[in-house]
Amino acid sequence: MKTQVAIIGGGPSGLLLSQLLHTVGISSIVLERKTKEYVLGRIRAGVLEQGFVQLMRKAGCSERMDAEGFVHDGTVISNADELIELNFTELTGTPVLVYGQTEVTRDLYEAREKAGGQIEYEVEDVVIHDAKTDAPYLTYTVHGEERRIDCDYVAGCDGFHGVSRQTIPSDVRQEFEKVYPFGWLGILSETPPVHEELIYCNSPHGFALCSMRNANLSRYYVQVPLTDKVEEWSDERFWDEFKRRIPAEVAEKLVTGPSIEKSIAPLRSFVTEPMSWGRLFLCGDAAHIVPPTGAKGLNTAASDIHYLFEALKAHYLEGDDSGIEGYSEKALLRVWKAERFSWWMTNLLHRFPEQGPFDIKMQQAELNFLRDNKEAQKVLAQNYVGLPY
Amino acid sequence: MKTQVAIIGGGPSGLLLSQLLHTVGISSIVLERKTKEYVLGRIRAGVLEQGFVQLMRKAGCSERMDAEGFVHDGTVISNADELIELNFTELTGTPVLVYGQTEVTRDLYEAREKAGGQIEYEVEDVVIHDAKTDAPYLTYTVHGEERRIDCDYVAGCDGFHGVSRQTIPSDVRQEFEKVYPFGWLGILSETPPVHEELIYCNSPHGFALCSMRNANLSRYYVQVPLTDKVEEWSDERFWDEFKRRIPAEVAEKLVTGPSIEKSIAPLRSFVTEPMSWGRLFLCGDAAHIVPPTGAKGLNTAASDIHYLFEALKAHYLEGDDSGIEGYSEKALLRVWKAERFSWWMTNLLHRFPEQGPFDIKMQQAELNFLRDNKEAQKVLAQNYVGLPY
Repeated sequence: MKTQVAIIGGGPSGLLLSQLLHTVGISSIVLERKTKEYVLGRIRAGVLEQGFVQLMRKAGCSERMDAEGFVHDGTVISNADELIELNFTELTGTPVLVYGQTEVTRDLYEAREKAGGQIEYEVEDVVIHDAKTDAPYLTYTVHGEERRIDCDYVAGCDGFHGVSRQTIPSDVRQEFEKVYPFGWLGILSETPPVHEELIYCNSPHGFALCSMRNANLSRYYVQVPLTDKVEEWSDERFWDEFKRRIPAEVAEKLVTGPSIEKSIAPLRSFVTEPMSWGRLFLCGDAAHIVPPTGAKGLNTAASDIHYLFEALKAHYLEGDDSGIEGYSEKALLRVWKAERFSWWMTNLLHRFPEQGPFDIKMQQAELNFLRDNKEAQKVLAQNYVGLPY
Repeated sequence: MKTQVAIIGGGPSGLLLSQLLHTVGISSIVLERKTKEYVLGRIRAGVLEQGFVQLMRKAGCSERMDAEGFVHDGTVISNADELIELNFTELTGTPVLVYGQTEVTRDLYEAREKAGGQIEYEVEDVVIHDAKTDAPYLTYTVHGEERRIDCDYVAGCDGFHGVSRQTIPSDVRQEFEKVYPFGWLGILSETPPVHEELIYCNSPHGFALCSMRNANLSRYYVQVPLTDKVEEWSDERFWDEFKRRIPAEVAEKLVTGPSIEKSIAPLRSFVTEPMSWGRLFLCGDAAHIVPPTGAKGLNTAASDIHYLFEALKAHYLEGDDSGIEGYSEKALLRVWKAERFSWWMTNLLHRFPEQGPFDIKMQQAELNFLRDNKEAQKVLAQNYVGLPY
């Protein structure tokens, strides 16, 4: 097979890139390791920056999102029982949109299928060949059958464990990593969300987050030690702990119910440099991971897709290769900003085993400063709704 | 002897309080452990917040400061060879004033002497008695002679090692402390300052600071390991290391010369709570220490003096004790803000032994964000020129 851009990974990044390229007549083939059903079964966050929303519109996939997404004008940060309300629209002119990543992915699949987009599922043993030449190609197998795609460019949208990053020789790669000493235990429950906005809770018992997917689907989290196992957390234990960590006035309104999903995710900051190697470009989790505090994961993948799409468009439509050549540097500039924000917000809201009394006082002072200072609120809000591409 | 307010410590805090009380007819006696010459020999920072400047004016001691102090409209932060210029006056409407702490102290001594203010020098063995009663008193010796002062209130302006904090029983005191794993090696040199504003330098080789006392007196610092001794730092070694850490375009203009003072100061964050106990009130270093990054030491002492002066004035002139009762809480609110800022700025600019590659990237991202984001600049500027009392 032959295509202009071979895209490894059928998650939202790969699909969005494929669909965007389609709108300007650039061909692509998407390779996905799992089935479509598996991809749609993944539970992920759902706070979309305006930049992401605009990319979905540009891709022509925004109809359901625009109709069903929840506009959030702000968020709440709580410090024990005190609520700090941040109005993003007031502070920055821009709200965020709450619309689950699963829904985004579903809309993108539908658009790709409608347009006759080529997606190969259950591909195994992907190998990227000759990325440093003018004629790269991929080999892979599907149900034991060997296949090959010749292409101009390869987009590596295959996540942290994918083949794309590993293809870049380790002596030209530099990796930066921080593993946090805790994870997030999350549950999904068919109950009305306790608050119409997200509440990020700093409490003496650790971090908690009140989030939601829709009017009858709540998503709640508590910070837990990395050594904890999901089996040790009955629904009852979760609700008890969760109530201890959210403000009393919020806990009073909480409707509890059985969990329909429960899992523990570790928190990690990770970046690899550079984000391109010859004709291979890394996007999203393949190049960087953020802790979920601040909801930057999918949104930072989207900024990569934006830069790569614009670069490929300039190459094919205008013969301008400056975007291709500058992709890694440009993408990384924004990646590090999102890394900084996610790291800062994680530090602000969690309890760390190594925190001493002075460190906790610093956290409190930072929260109090945020409560009292309009410019500090603006800095947070600008980062949360998304810095400009 | 008898007075209304006994003040322990004849540094700038104690003298300023004494002088302010004098302006509203409240009597005080200042006890100083050393001689006046010794106090004036101490080399300290010299960046004054507007709030401090206004207190000096209120105390009637601002004539020389207003004539000879240098108005600084901003400061520079450098990241390797890149300069980030922050204009405080533009960002906040307020500049800072560079005027040495030694000069402040000299002016306050002069004002106290002119007004016939009572200062006891070379006092030893100060003991604070009955601070929890309505009739506290101090005992002490001067050249072997025992003396006693009866008073209404005691102001503890006697620094970190003074008797005042120790007088508060340890079971009612809570102390918060962070010791940084480096110190500042500072030199004073009779050379023209390399730049008209301060330059705070983050470099791969560690922190450096370009500061000054006047047009022909430079004050420069480099971060050094705590284990370093002054004797290990010849002038030549200092200048070599200093030049490596400041931006190349600044280093080109640097005029070096022999040091006339050279010393290493450790960096510490410290707060004790509460800041009052019965009729004893702690002010300045007696209650809290900040690392020098951001120049908050003397300025934070000044905010304590402001609150205590207003409280005593309200008590004596209006019979209103609310300020006295609320002193500790009010003073601490602002102290923690200064602690947070000094800690943050120290973290932003120094190299730490425990910093990994990711942590250094976060520092770089924070500096780049500061360079690019007006609100982040405002947050820094507001803190630097001094948050409102």
